[in-house]
Amino acid sequence: MRSLLDILDFSTDELSSLMNRANDMISHPEFYRHVCDGRQLATLFFEPSTRTRLSFESAMLALGGRVLTVTGSDSSSMAKGESLADTARTVSCYADIIAMRHPLEGAARVAAESATIPVINAGDGGHCHPTQTLADLFTIYREKGTFENLTVGLCGDLMYGRTVHSLIAALSRYPGVNFILISPVELQIPDYVRFSLLEKGIPFEETTSLEDALPRLDILYMTRIQQERFDDHSLYLALKDSYILTPNKMTLAHPEMAILHPLPRVNEISPDIDKDPRACYFKQVYNGKMMRMALIIELLFGKSQPQPGTPPLYLNRLCSNPHCVTRFEYGLIPSFYAVKGEKDTYRCRYCDHLAET
Amino acid sequence: MRSLLDILDFSTDELSSLMNRANDMISHPEFYRHVCDGRQLATLFFEPSTRTRLSFESAMLALGGRVLTVTGSDSSSMAKGESLADTARTVSCYADIIAMRHPLEGAARVAAESATIPVINAGDGGHCHPTQTLADLFTIYREKGTFENLTVGLCGDLMYGRTVHSLIAALSRYPGVNFILISPVELQIPDYVRFSLLEKGIPFEETTSLEDALPRLDILYMTRIQQERFDDHSLYLALKDSYILTPNKMTLAHPEMAILHPLPRVNEISPDIDKDPRACYFKQVYNGKMMRMALIIELLFGKSQPQPGTPPLYLNRLCSNPHCVTRFEYGLIPSFYAVKGEKDTYRCRYCDHLAET
Amino acid sequence: MRSLLDILDFSTDELSSLMNRANDMISHPEFYRHVCDGRQLATLFFEPSTRTRLSFESAMLALGGRVLTVTGSDSSSMAKGESLADTARTVSCYADIIAMRHPLEGAARVAAESATIPVINAGDGGHCHPTQTLADLFTIYREKGTFENLTVGLCGDLMYGRTVHSLIAALSRYPGVNFILISPVELQIPDYVRFSLLEKGIPFEETTSLEDALPRLDILYMTRIQQERFDDHSLYLALKDSYILTPNKMTLAHPEMAILHPLPRVNEISPDIDKDPRACYFKQVYNGKMMRMALIIELLFGKSQPQPGTPPLYLNRLCSNPHCVTRFEYGLIPSFYAVKGEKDTYRCRYCDHLAET
Repeated sequence: MRSLLDILDFSTDELSSLMNRANDMISHPEFYRHVCDGRQLATLFFEPSTRTRLSFESAMLALGGRVLTVTGSDSSSMAKGESLADTARTVSCYADIIAMRHPLEGAARVAAESATIPVINAGDGGHCHPTQTLADLFTIYREKGTFENLTVGLCGDLMYGRTVHSLIAALSRYPGVNFILISPVELQIPDYVRFSLLEKGIPFEETTSLEDALPRLDILYMTRIQQERFDDHSLYLALKDSYILTPNKMTLAHPEMAILHPLPRVNEISPDIDKDPRACYFKQVYNGKMMRMALIIELLFGKSQPQPGTPPLYLNRLCSNPHCVTRFEYGLIPSFYAVKGEKDTYRCRYCDHLAET
Repeated sequence: MRSLLDILDFSTDELSSLMNRANDMISHPEFYRHVCDGRQLATLFFEPSTRTRLSFESAMLALGGRVLTVTGSDSSSMAKGESLADTARTVSCYADIIAMRHPLEGAARVAAESATIPVINAGDGGHCHPTQTLADLFTIYREKGTFENLTVGLCGDLMYGRTVHSLIAALSRYPGVNFILISPVELQIPDYVRFSLLEKGIPFEETTSLEDALPRLDILYMTRIQQERFDDHSLYLALKDSYILTPNKMTLAHPEMAILHPLPRVNEISPDIDKDPRACYFKQVYNGKMMRMALIIELLFGKSQPQPGTPPLYLNRLCSNPHCVTRFEYGLIPSFYAVKGEKDTYRCRYCDHLAET
Repeated sequence: MRSLLDILDFSTDELSSLMNRANDMISHPEFYRHVCDGRQLATLFFEPSTRTRLSFESAMLALGGRVLTVTGSDSSSMAKGESLADTARTVSCYADIIAMRHPLEGAARVAAESATIPVINAGDGGHCHPTQTLADLFTIYREKGTFENLTVGLCGDLMYGRTVHSLIAALSRYPGVNFILISPVELQIPDYVRFSLLEKGIPFEETTSLEDALPRLDILYMTRIQQERFDDHSLYLALKDSYILTPNKMTLAHPEMAILHPLPRVNEISPDIDKDPRACYFKQVYNGKMMRMALIIELLFGKSQPQPGTPPLYLNRLCSNPHCVTRFEYGLIPSFYAVKGEKDTYRCRYCDHLAET
């Protein structure tokens, strides 16, 4: 039995296989309408994320399955006084697969360790949201036919956006990809992402100018810049318009460039661009549903096994992350893994933050 | 592709066709059990209305379809920071048809303009609620076999009750209908409804006495009188009992008169009347489900096209209605239509209120 | 047509028949996958109880039926200004069967009296929760093959736990059952339960020591002790650990003893026990789903009729219970029944509390 907690849980071969299946679903929807007859997906959303929930539910229903929904005030009643492990074990008695969203980082792993059915991480705090990355990858693949030798621009808040970090990690496994990282200085990628790119020898450049980058991009991945990230309000005002994609700026872009956005957008892409054939963000929504369908089939019926991980280290230390699930889950003992090439460095098995020293 | 935003979007022929189909469903439910297999209805309720939502969901399930539900705290998360247009476009990637309830007037039209699937207005603020009118019309039709030459009494709050205005507009298209409008002076029909009746030459009278009207009615449509509508509390106390329908008052009514009520009732119809064969308000609930089933089939599979409307006028003015969706929706430019016979009068294409001067 | 409001509504023969069907479902799930095709269950949860709701919904979906869900803020909108009787009658127009949870005691009976479809009580305040007892009974039956001659230990809060009272009442109908009641003195069973056991001549003993009782038990039914039940906090501290089931204490128990718990647990059973083959509380969750499936089939398709009850007595008195539904439901006249053997004693037909004198 297998779960999806982090996009890197799946090898590039496994991702190819998922994308092939999603393509086949688009060509032959009639073959898939009853694949999940009699199966139930439980969507456990301890934090609201309506688009993600609908995408999962719509995917399961399109496969002929049924859905059990836990959300809103319901989820707070479930959370109250019961461990996540018990909740996951209980829901395993009702459903065949779980998609879980939770504000604590590492929550999906706790659920997966206790559940007797597959668990899909539909977002655990600021940690991972792998099915968004599935949607992003499949959109790039459908638009470009390949991941190799692409110039990918990522624009906006590159510091806090987990979808950006996850997409960088996923694309870094394909040869010839290079990144142009477009952001205000305040919102550049975190050091650990930069070090990882350097270590793997992946070409990237950092710039503050969307206009400069645009002509060179195969893919433009837009994200939202949030006002509250800036200490200096006048700086925010100065910057905010420079990252709004307008028809005027689009004249600088290649006629085949694809625009992606994880949505919801606020105003960072002008609605006037929606009819531009390069706008792929609503296709991306559809592609996300298709990949979730492929994923549900894989986890319910696939033969693949998770790769054996490194054994957990019990260090008698706490995780340094205040939002880590290990700080809140009753009866859970923190455990860690060693980091290759970093001596005496241990990261939390649940949220990947450093162990406290 | 077609949506239902206002009851007048459908011609009387189209309404007849819907009612014929609903009748056929009642006679031959077995023919309809799988009509919507593989189709999904999204109920987007940005404001709670549990009865209406259940009616839509039950209708879709009875047709073999599936349901995606957005409601409560979930809907507030969806509303937050995303335009209604983007929400409708996103949900179009997941579902085949949308039923939407929203507190802003005109919201359903905004969604329909952006969605790539049919949109049913399940209530947009105080503006329209056409599927309630479908339930009302079908109940009258089933009880009386015709709309022609009926004397229809409408009782209670005739000023603010949108179901009343919508029913008057819908019935005014049938020959021989006449209205007896029973209400306190404070809660008489608004001027625009009165002018419209006069203009069309439809007979109506206004009275404050339910007892006087009762003997002459074929249909009695009851609504609730809300205490908060009265400036003068003693007046409210004096009036409130006179509009409560009791078994005693029912002795004045014709033995074939049908009592309708949009529900929920509070105390304006005594529970003692529920067993009177003239009480049709629970039948009306059932009829509402049947009409929603017929409507879903029509919008998903029907060949009819919307009638070409008048082109939008962009006047560089605002809508005068503080609850109009054009005042809140990001990127939406207000547009208007000219009113026949009223020189220099323009109404909002979304909520039908006047343009600001 | 039949409803389930109280576990004693079903005779022991009827319970056997339900359990036989549940067993058959476990052996031959394929025979039941489409039993409820085209049927709809409405889950009306006016108070959150996510586990119970999921169990019902999962049960209905596994039978091929569909589900309408009312919960959270939705339910508060439904409750507002409409009588429970009207709500139940309205939902009868949409669904084929109702499972209702409500904070008021007796609420399920009010719904059942007005609904035109079967109503299952999924918990009415502190009054009844009969489907939990179905799960408990079926688990005992599957583990032990019989109810006869069992020694059943009930541990924890025996005063306020309605599942405990209901299980005692249900088991008291089988020959040879005896009880060991393990609780702090403050949380012993209420007098009416004790009198009932004495009256029926059922052997029981009361003890404060879990360790003393453990070696003699066939069944251990654990419940949670809530801190807020104690006036004396130091007493709570002294007691709380003595009722936590640990691997160490389990060495005292019979190798075939079955541990049950209605869940959620907080810390009264150590997670280390979950892998002990005697731990049956997650099986109990699964068994609860199976019994709900059997119950839905019985109520939708069974031929059995409710036993004629005693006629209601209208005494022109109120029920003494401040949480009784008769104190809140518009238009409901309190009614009572006489208590056998107790002269001039009347109990409320809705919540079973005494009439005010």
